[in-house]
Amino acid sequence: MSQNQEKKKVTVYDTTLRDGAQGEGIHFSTEDKLSYVKRIGDMGELYVEAGWPGANPRDEEFFQQFRGLQTSRIRIAAFGSTCKVMESPEKSEILLKLVASGAKTITIFGKSWDLHVRDVLRTTLEENLRIIQESVSFLHQQGREVFFDAEHFFDGFKENPEYALKCVSAALKGGADAIILCDTNGGSLPGEIDPGVRAVVQKFSPPILGIHVHNDRGLAVANSLIAVEAGVNQVQGTWNGFGERCGNANLSTLIPLLQLKGDYDVVSDAALLKLTSFSRYVAELTNAPFDEKQPFVGRSAFAHKAGMHVDAILKNQRTFEHIDPAEVGNERRILISDQAGKANILERLRRFEPMIRKDDPRVEMAMTEIKELEHAGFQFEAAEGSLDLLLLRTLGKLSTPLFEVLDYHVWSDPLRGELDSVAVVKVKVGEETVQIASEGNGPVNALDTALRQALAKFFPVLDESELVNYKVRVLDGAHGTEAIVRVIIDTRLGNEVWGTIGVSKNILRASAQALLDAINWTIWRGKEQSAL
Amino acid sequence: MSQNQEKKKVTVYDTTLRDGAQGEGIHFSTEDKLSYVKRIGDMGELYVEAGWPGANPRDEEFFQQFRGLQTSRIRIAAFGSTCKVMESPEKSEILLKLVASGAKTITIFGKSWDLHVRDVLRTTLEENLRIIQESVSFLHQQGREVFFDAEHFFDGFKENPEYALKCVSAALKGGADAIILCDTNGGSLPGEIDPGVRAVVQKFSPPILGIHVHNDRGLAVANSLIAVEAGVNQVQGTWNGFGERCGNANLSTLIPLLQLKGDYDVVSDAALLKLTSFSRYVAELTNAPFDEKQPFVGRSAFAHKAGMHVDAILKNQRTFEHIDPAEVGNERRILISDQAGKANILERLRRFEPMIRKDDPRVEMAMTEIKELEHAGFQFEAAEGSLDLLLLRTLGKLSTPLFEVLDYHVWSDPLRGELDSVAVVKVKVGEETVQIASEGNGPVNALDTALRQALAKFFPVLDESELVNYKVRVLDGAHGTEAIVRVIIDTRLGNEVWGTIGVSKNILRASAQALLDAINWTIWRGKEQSAL
Repeated sequence: MSQNQEKKKVTVYDTTLRDGAQGEGIHFSTEDKLSYVKRIGDMGELYVEAGWPGANPRDEEFFQQFRGLQTSRIRIAAFGSTCKVMESPEKSEILLKLVASGAKTITIFGKSWDLHVRDVLRTTLEENLRIIQESVSFLHQQGREVFFDAEHFFDGFKENPEYALKCVSAALKGGADAIILCDTNGGSLPGEIDPGVRAVVQKFSPPILGIHVHNDRGLAVANSLIAVEAGVNQVQGTWNGFGERCGNANLSTLIPLLQLKGDYDVVSDAALLKLTSFSRYVAELTNAPFDEKQPFVGRSAFAHKAGMHVDAILKNQRTFEHIDPAEVGNERRILISDQAGKANILERLRRFEPMIRKDDPRVEMAMTEIKELEHAGFQFEAAEGSLDLLLLRTLGKLSTPLFEVLDYHVWSDPLRGELDSVAVVKVKVGEETVQIASEGNGPVNALDTALRQALAKFFPVLDESELVNYKVRVLDGAHGTEAIVRVIIDTRLGNEVWGTIGVSKNILRASAQALLDAINWTIWRGKEQSAL
Repeated sequence: MSQNQEKKKVTVYDTTLRDGAQGEGIHFSTEDKLSYVKRIGDMGELYVEAGWPGANPRDEEFFQQFRGLQTSRIRIAAFGSTCKVMESPEKSEILLKLVASGAKTITIFGKSWDLHVRDVLRTTLEENLRIIQESVSFLHQQGREVFFDAEHFFDGFKENPEYALKCVSAALKGGADAIILCDTNGGSLPGEIDPGVRAVVQKFSPPILGIHVHNDRGLAVANSLIAVEAGVNQVQGTWNGFGERCGNANLSTLIPLLQLKGDYDVVSDAALLKLTSFSRYVAELTNAPFDEKQPFVGRSAFAHKAGMHVDAILKNQRTFEHIDPAEVGNERRILISDQAGKANILERLRRFEPMIRKDDPRVEMAMTEIKELEHAGFQFEAAEGSLDLLLLRTLGKLSTPLFEVLDYHVWSDPLRGELDSVAVVKVKVGEETVQIASEGNGPVNALDTALRQALAKFFPVLDESELVNYKVRVLDGAHGTEAIVRVIIDTRLGNEVWGTIGVSKNILRASAQALLDAINWTIWRGKEQSAL
């Protein structure tokens, strides 16, 4: 598209800390929220809806502490509802707490579907209009930027369009700075979003018109896009898409989608580069499972498995990638699996032996071994350390084992205290045999400590490496405690992190396997790094 | 909508076993595939694309074994490509293997984007048309139903629409029974899908016109919907939406979406009722993580957290649910969390004490304890057994402990053999003390066996219950093996299954906590059931 054509500015209103927190299993402490608002600046000038100071004491605490911070880039919003039925705004505890929070922007929601007015509020249609208009007006007179969320707007517009528009009108009469149209139940189709938005644009042309949808029919991102095309200039959502029930519009998908379309100005290129790392940061903060096949930011988003795809990609990137992963801070991955064609394996072997040929028998050997292990539960995609050790062995570059574990025992007295487990390991390095006993917090920690202690005197690099993640997955949980367990350990050395894996019915054996691969890989990688 | 208006029939073409298998971490054995084709009949008369007999020996094995089965309801399709450039179909190993598979329906893909013809096939535009037409014709003459996947159709239509349509034309000239338009790279927008589909409808009106899209921009379901509205009558996708990179169109979302819209006939009501259980079956078969916030079928899809939502739902279901969860075999859940309003907790307490009042101090006590524990890592949403034990204790219905665990020790010699761990537990029931030693496969299995053995003589119901799932989640994996671990155990008694939970830095302690709750809950529930 022509450089001269002006892009429409679309603002982002991030409700991760509020609506996102209504997702199952999601929880933010005050510290989490403070950490978040410092970090979100990476993504540019957004609105951040940080909580409901009326409803939640922890949120009041946040707003108090936030006032002490200097953050110029982001605009914090406090969220709440209109005053109650038959109440006057000046007496409304909810509104007074919103004002007391100090937030410069206040977003309140009000009913715009007559069903809710009758069955939930149990009042008249006129009273609902009053509480909308007067609540907005009250906040406006306090000098705040007031956003009005027309809750259930699209359901309301479908069943009683006149009334839905009256609710919007009431908010505007009260002095609302923005109207946000909400598909609160998440059931609206694109063909229902478009006319609702256009009606509001045509009748009112509010300076800021936002869209807030839910994903109950898998259409949140599409509906947000359709709304923007119909005239909306603010999109609301959450990173990674979590939120009440099926979640909100996923900002990690919607932002790059709109930005890369070419006619919208949503975030800077620099912010887009941080998209993947920021989305992962949010997932870690929430401890929520990260959907790795998420568009743009998932680990699998640019992961190619089918041999034919890999072959084509290596010829021309456009053949199987819709964008360059680097634009969103992600990377292409060539997967090694039982579906790997020779192209996949060859690409990785060439890191260690650049001149290896496609018909070298070791390529076939590596492929066979990988497929067999994958079949047994190994997942090399998440354990590239173990994968590379396997490839090095196949290439003949690791013929002499660096050390041998002769024996190991672990016992636990869990009622004893924190350091309740002891591991004893016996290792042999060259001619020397060493036996070490080590305490730990739980059997796996004890084993990890003992192995490292025993081997660090021979391989000092082990003291520089750090175990940074420990993931356990029960593979066929249906067999209860006799199930196969897969353990993946992430290790950091310098600024590299890679995974190693162990698979067994016995969680200790699986952990030991992953730990030993981690140790072997650290030693090998340490030698490499010092050779450079 | 009027009953008289005829619904448009939309067929489902399920590519879970083929395209789904190209998703990272997804893998089907031959046994898995055979189990699948027996079960998929639940969902009605679908096409099931079961594999590529040319490319994968395991797939050839499947087609061989499948011929022996009698399945009237589903139509198995074999997948493959056109013959190679400069090759004649009669000599093509790929095509011959497709024919040899015995599949009545054969789907082959061919390039419809000139970029791919030039850079990947490295041939002329005419040669590509020839291999499409002649490959389809060859299969047609073998008496098969031939489907043609126009690979990269929408990218091709964007850059060279004439040529993309020529590729479709070539397939039809060859005798193709169906044309499937593919958004292979997943980058197309709804505004690009619609014109592409309409052009094919207008020019060719193929009797079967299908849509096959990918989710790289989060638009797969929306694009499929738009395509159906534009004239497509076959939708392709995978259950739970996995597949290459970001996956395919999610059938678990798309099928109910189309069916519930009212003007499409996709599956029977009876099949829709099985949607949730079938989707979960597929996730278990693939061992893939199940996205619980998935529309329609996720555990969170109808889970209400915010106190205000719960309050409204209990007044009128339509206020916060876009459909009745029962229609898709799912259920509503009222979540207990730190955001739980009194309505959430009260609803659950009333199961045990129907007359308890909202202002009873025990309601507040329960709420406080739950919020504190959730803060420490407990997740009661997945452990309703532990939750109910907590509520029973708060209500004062469990004042006398049924038993006491005085001591327990575990030790493991992982190099010894399968039964490498021993647990010793000492329990007290009433006046009697019992000490039991038990072997197991790994420390947790040993502990589980020992506890049950020690207590079953006092509580025989323990012999009737079964531990059916064991889930471990490392909560803050960034602390490596010192991380907090959350263990959730699922126990079955009769035809009920519920979860119990343990949280600790020590995996044994966390497992013991979950096991003890499971035992306590089994005993309590067993008494309840015999009292009925």
